[in-house]
Amino acid sequence: MEKDSEKMPETTTTSNMEEQVNQQERDPESNSLHQPLLKRNRTLSSSPLALVGTKVSYIESLDYEINENDLFKHDWRTRSQAQVLQYVFLKWLLAFLVGLLTGVIATLINLAVENIAGYKLLAVVHYIERKRYMMGFFLMTGVNFILTLMATLLCVFFAPTAAGPGIPEIKAYLNGVDTPNMYGATTMFVKIIGSIGAVAAGLDLGKEGPLVHIGACIASLLGQGGPDNYRIRWKWIRYFNNDRDRRDIITCGASSGVCAAFRAPVGGVLFALEEVATWWRSALLWRTFFSTAVVVVVLRTFMEYCKEGECGLFGEGGLIMFDVSGVSVNYHVVDLIPVTIIGIIGGVLGSLYNYALHKVLRLYNLINEKGKLAKILLSLSVSLFTSACLYGLPFLASCTPCDPSALDSECPTTGRMGNFKKFNCPKGHYNDLATLLLTTNDDAVRNIFSTNTPSEYRVFSLVIFFILYCILGLFTFGIAVPSGLFLPIILMGSAYGRLLGMAMGPYTTIDQGLFAVLGAASLMAGSMRMTVSLCVIFLELTNNLLLLPITMLVLLISKSVGDCFNPSIYEIILDLKGLPFLEAHPEPWMRNITVGELADVKPPVVTLSGIEKVGWIVEVLRNTTHNAFAVVDNTLVPTGGQMSEVHGLILRAHLLLVLKKKWFLQERRRTEEWEIREKFTWVDVAERWGTIEEVAVTKEEMEMYVDLHPLTNTTPYTVVETMSVAKALVQFRQVGLRHMLVLPKYHGPSVPPVVGILTRQDLRAHNILSAFPHLEKSHASKKGR
Amino acid sequence: MEKDSEKMPETTTTSNMEEQVNQQERDPESNSLHQPLLKRNRTLSSSPLALVGTKVSYIESLDYEINENDLFKHDWRTRSQAQVLQYVFLKWLLAFLVGLLTGVIATLINLAVENIAGYKLLAVVHYIERKRYMMGFFLMTGVNFILTLMATLLCVFFAPTAAGPGIPEIKAYLNGVDTPNMYGATTMFVKIIGSIGAVAAGLDLGKEGPLVHIGACIASLLGQGGPDNYRIRWKWIRYFNNDRDRRDIITCGASSGVCAAFRAPVGGVLFALEEVATWWRSALLWRTFFSTAVVVVVLRTFMEYCKEGECGLFGEGGLIMFDVSGVSVNYHVVDLIPVTIIGIIGGVLGSLYNYALHKVLRLYNLINEKGKLAKILLSLSVSLFTSACLYGLPFLASCTPCDPSALDSECPTTGRMGNFKKFNCPKGHYNDLATLLLTTNDDAVRNIFSTNTPSEYRVFSLVIFFILYCILGLFTFGIAVPSGLFLPIILMGSAYGRLLGMAMGPYTTIDQGLFAVLGAASLMAGSMRMTVSLCVIFLELTNNLLLLPITMLVLLISKSVGDCFNPSIYEIILDLKGLPFLEAHPEPWMRNITVGELADVKPPVVTLSGIEKVGWIVEVLRNTTHNAFAVVDNTLVPTGGQMSEVHGLILRAHLLLVLKKKWFLQERRRTEEWEIREKFTWVDVAERWGTIEEVAVTKEEMEMYVDLHPLTNTTPYTVVETMSVAKALVQFRQVGLRHMLVLPKYHGPSVPPVVGILTRQDLRAHNILSAFPHLEKSHASKKGR
Repeated sequence: MEKDSEKMPETTTTSNMEEQVNQQERDPESNSLHQPLLKRNRTLSSSPLALVGTKVSYIESLDYEINENDLFKHDWRTRSQAQVLQYVFLKWLLAFLVGLLTGVIATLINLAVENIAGYKLLAVVHYIERKRYMMGFFLMTGVNFILTLMATLLCVFFAPTAAGPGIPEIKAYLNGVDTPNMYGATTMFVKIIGSIGAVAAGLDLGKEGPLVHIGACIASLLGQGGPDNYRIRWKWIRYFNNDRDRRDIITCGASSGVCAAFRAPVGGVLFALEEVATWWRSALLWRTFFSTAVVVVVLRTFMEYCKEGECGLFGEGGLIMFDVSGVSVNYHVVDLIPVTIIGIIGGVLGSLYNYALHKVLRLYNLINEKGKLAKILLSLSVSLFTSACLYGLPFLASCTPCDPSALDSECPTTGRMGNFKKFNCPKGHYNDLATLLLTTNDDAVRNIFSTNTPSEYRVFSLVIFFILYCILGLFTFGIAVPSGLFLPIILMGSAYGRLLGMAMGPYTTIDQGLFAVLGAASLMAGSMRMTVSLCVIFLELTNNLLLLPITMLVLLISKSVGDCFNPSIYEIILDLKGLPFLEAHPEPWMRNITVGELADVKPPVVTLSGIEKVGWIVEVLRNTTHNAFAVVDNTLVPTGGQMSEVHGLILRAHLLLVLKKKWFLQERRRTEEWEIREKFTWVDVAERWGTIEEVAVTKEEMEMYVDLHPLTNTTPYTVVETMSVAKALVQFRQVGLRHMLVLPKYHGPSVPPVVGILTRQDLRAHNILSAFPHLEKSHASKKGR
Repeated sequence: MEKDSEKMPETTTTSNMEEQVNQQERDPESNSLHQPLLKRNRTLSSSPLALVGTKVSYIESLDYEINENDLFKHDWRTRSQAQVLQYVFLKWLLAFLVGLLTGVIATLINLAVENIAGYKLLAVVHYIERKRYMMGFFLMTGVNFILTLMATLLCVFFAPTAAGPGIPEIKAYLNGVDTPNMYGATTMFVKIIGSIGAVAAGLDLGKEGPLVHIGACIASLLGQGGPDNYRIRWKWIRYFNNDRDRRDIITCGASSGVCAAFRAPVGGVLFALEEVATWWRSALLWRTFFSTAVVVVVLRTFMEYCKEGECGLFGEGGLIMFDVSGVSVNYHVVDLIPVTIIGIIGGVLGSLYNYALHKVLRLYNLINEKGKLAKILLSLSVSLFTSACLYGLPFLASCTPCDPSALDSECPTTGRMGNFKKFNCPKGHYNDLATLLLTTNDDAVRNIFSTNTPSEYRVFSLVIFFILYCILGLFTFGIAVPSGLFLPIILMGSAYGRLLGMAMGPYTTIDQGLFAVLGAASLMAGSMRMTVSLCVIFLELTNNLLLLPITMLVLLISKSVGDCFNPSIYEIILDLKGLPFLEAHPEPWMRNITVGELADVKPPVVTLSGIEKVGWIVEVLRNTTHNAFAVVDNTLVPTGGQMSEVHGLILRAHLLLVLKKKWFLQERRRTEEWEIREKFTWVDVAERWGTIEEVAVTKEEMEMYVDLHPLTNTTPYTVVETMSVAKALVQFRQVGLRHMLVLPKYHGPSVPPVVGILTRQDLRAHNILSAFPHLEKSHASKKGR
């Protein structure tokens, strides 16, 4: 604010400001612009360093606000009916292409996984049949080792952002946080290949999370017209060169991903709506739904084709669909008791899992920081441990004789799929633990969900299975390969559900397979804290509508119980990654602090004149990291005193654009509209223009002027300094802002027209608390709300 | 603005203002406050008169913004942990009760309808069996006449707002528009009884829309602690005495209603989300889901109980669930062609229906305006016409011999339910038109959806059925009884779908029953323009997951086609009723106009001083209809000139509160916090306090002062006058405002601190266009967007 009051009205030609600029040039250390930056870091910023998985890098915010400057308005006015139709058509075409490509890639991943894992398992079974157990072990471990190595190498060397599920980053993106290198072509390819490798290697992870990320990558790449270096620069694709349209397309991509993962079109839409998206509107709901419809048609077409045996070992497998529609669901009001118990235990276990996973991820972070070799070794040890357990543990289980009365199910099975695996057992017997372990994860779920098989599994086997997958589920997720969280949780949950079903068998008529389904649902809700979308996903997965009411109850209970202990797993990961996600609800103590107080602890706001000296612009850009600056016009009033007018906000990108294109004026004057239109198009305005270091400005040019008016967003969203942070936060999030202008409450002579500019970081609870520790007290006492 | 500049700083004791007040008292006609009101009506207000159904009345907006005044903040600070927990617990308890009561009432309605209509049909069938056709006719017509008369009388004399579906009003309420007498106890009871009467009378309307309204009524009544005159005033229920919490509960109620109507818990949640709600957040999704889960459990419990024959004729009937799960859905890529055709025709028919219904409603409006008798006569003639057609038309159809190869279906049936009705046919024959017409609407849908009966219906019968229901669907909706739109549209759609299925029979393997389902879905999407929620409702209604992908495609195509012609039926009704609904998307031309220009054509804003004379407050309240006033403090600056500070907004309700409680001061002074807390509690602040006419202020009191500061909302949302209307509208809607303060762009001496206050009416496209006709041109040319 000091800065502003020192600035003179622009109508006077000799100005203090220029002197000050010169002073600053002589002694950069005394530059008033430096101090604020330091102060700012001390008070209102959290570390923007990502802790887990991704590379250390700064995180940018996205511009979801419409930047209404003169160029935009002109473009808007002159956009013809045909162009508007083109834009609408293109939106739908992109939604279609996103669905199509996601569907195709999902099918390819399934094909690859089923074939690789299938031939591996066939070979292993082949050795086991001939009692050559060691050979089987080495084969399995070796193949898994190589597959894991491949996935890890790709992730570590080419695309570190491809590790993990990617869902938290997408959630953050749709909230307005841009994580770098998240949606590139390299990331996508590494994610696809890595996911195939990791899943085929039998690791305890799913392809569901990665598919969501792949869907988002496809959407982003299509929206920007191709990979970064080879972008199609056709005019029509440039309509989408803004953060708002890209956000919509990425939402479509994420839903398509879920849909492709679970073959659950409605579930995909709802997942995006409930878990991922921050802003939502009816039109988007509809477009997203269109994308998932396309995905389903693609998947169906492929499956029809593959039924004819053209896809190797794919056949009926893959594309998970745990069909329990055959079973007649018979439950009464009494059955609410076991359902409640499942829900409660699921909630407790889910939050325990969240807690433990948090600890493990912190530990892994320490290991991963040691370098690429550490990452690779970590992955490989997990792979070795997994292979050893999957192969070795079934030997602990004793063989069970087949039930001859079950005519419809083959027993024992010797192929790579199927229930009742023979493994090391004599004829007419099966090994129940091998049925669960020596198979792909999808088939394991299918087997444990199998209905009308009450005595198939022994308690001992299920306990081992449950414990093993608890350990694997905790220690596999953080390694440097693409990994989803859905399947590990489903595996754990189904084991505990089936165990519970066995314990409660005498008291209920619900089938054990359904208990497994409910157990999986409860653990998902207990860990991920979704309700409606999980309910629909489970509905579509299990193809049994009659299950709906009890699934709903289980999900509601588990989520409520889990919420008592800790936040959802995605929120924990968001927090670990240090992504500045803005929650929907302001904290209660935010009513006790105003935005004016927040702006006060920040450095004084940097304002520019409507017609500004090039030298000062360069100076400001070099010495600050702000991404937007207030543009203020001062005029002298005839009656004395001065009037100041906030003309708007100008983005750093646009200042850089001006400097790069050298759109300078010899004298202080307002430009005409044709002058700017001659020099810039709206396409230039949408691009990002590098850094100030890339700009070369000569000494003469430094003395020239720039008319900032036509490039200024004249309609920034504003709040008065007396606004409470709680309400400002609601506005910031609801309207999708990047910068929020704070105006003074006083009107009168010598009141500066702008108090400050608030950004996402300034409004985060954690950052405010570190600057205003006294709020912590009320924070603690009101936490329950 | 004139007003403001005339006002002197409050520190001076002799003020022009007081003189002006005195002047005004002498000559009320010259009061400057009168003129603006007139001007306002001329420019920026649409007629707030409801056209259809409801009584003529003014419509108020709701306060969804948190009113952060001193009392609220004090209450917030002192709310103990226990109170917060109480509040959270109560929220869930209310959600539970809403679900429970909606479920119970839905069951009772079904019981009543099934029994009344059932016994009526049994008696009619009894006469027909003995060939006493005229007696049958008189019985049926007479019973239907009496039932309709009862429903109409109740609606006309006790609760005019109970007529129609109620969904548009709920949609408007959740958008922030309060329609009077919408959620009272009388309305609810009339809706329940009237709905039973109208549905049992065989009119072409459903109980679905009314159930949604009933759910909302239950929610509203529970939220406010009972009917208006007998409210429980316990402390804990008062936490919910605000528009925000009531909005959340009513959302729960609306979803519960849909769930109860269709037994579709997820569909109910999605319906509320896609069609009804304006604001949405994850927490609400979850609570709504809980309510619908409770509804489903209640319905299931009742059905289990009724299976034992305790519920008269209820038995298996009622509670629609058009089970087509038995059929094996076999479709290939080729079947996309008929599906596309159904979608396109459904879209065209749906928009045609919207168009025709609009015309009919306008006509009915003219009739209904003629008085209560006209309304009653209209209902009764529709009832007579319906009865005559339902009874008479089946005589036109010829008898069909039963197919002896269909072993599993009874033919002909002679009871009140069942497929293949005997009616007037000889033994071993059935009348296909009677099967569809001489039954309840639910059963008619069930019969027309019936699968594996390809030759049951003749083309002739289906054509008659379709035409009849097109006519009835248009002319029944607008009469003064509770009526839903879902069922009439399903009936029409299923007929046309089945006809199409017969036409395409040779080219496709899709069952005719499924064609009927798809036809119904396409017409719904073509008229109501929902996608995801309809998809899920149909999924849950038909209990067949394999239908999902083709249902999705049909819905998407129909909606797209329909959108080319006109808006959805709910939007048309909203518009007809004159409810100021704010759309999510601003019109493109709204970028070419600023809020400052809007504020300019409005009357100058009325501001109050922080410490104001009672006389002036009374004057302002008497002469304006505004619901909020800007509170501005002026202080003299030592250096000359004056500073003005916008303290905030004060609501009319709070000014009335002050006047009623006579919280007056002898001298101009700021009060202490304890003074206001002694006089008012936060409960007072939440109430609505009648009108200014009910307030008596003596002449001495007129000269006293009021300190408005503690009652002023110090954190109103604001925009600068240069803000474009498009962006202001986004903020207004997203944050849920009632009043938006417009601030000046200039800062300096003698700039008034407030430019204007915008409300919902000011931001409506229609109103802006009537004040700024030049925008119309760009409006027309950009309409496609």
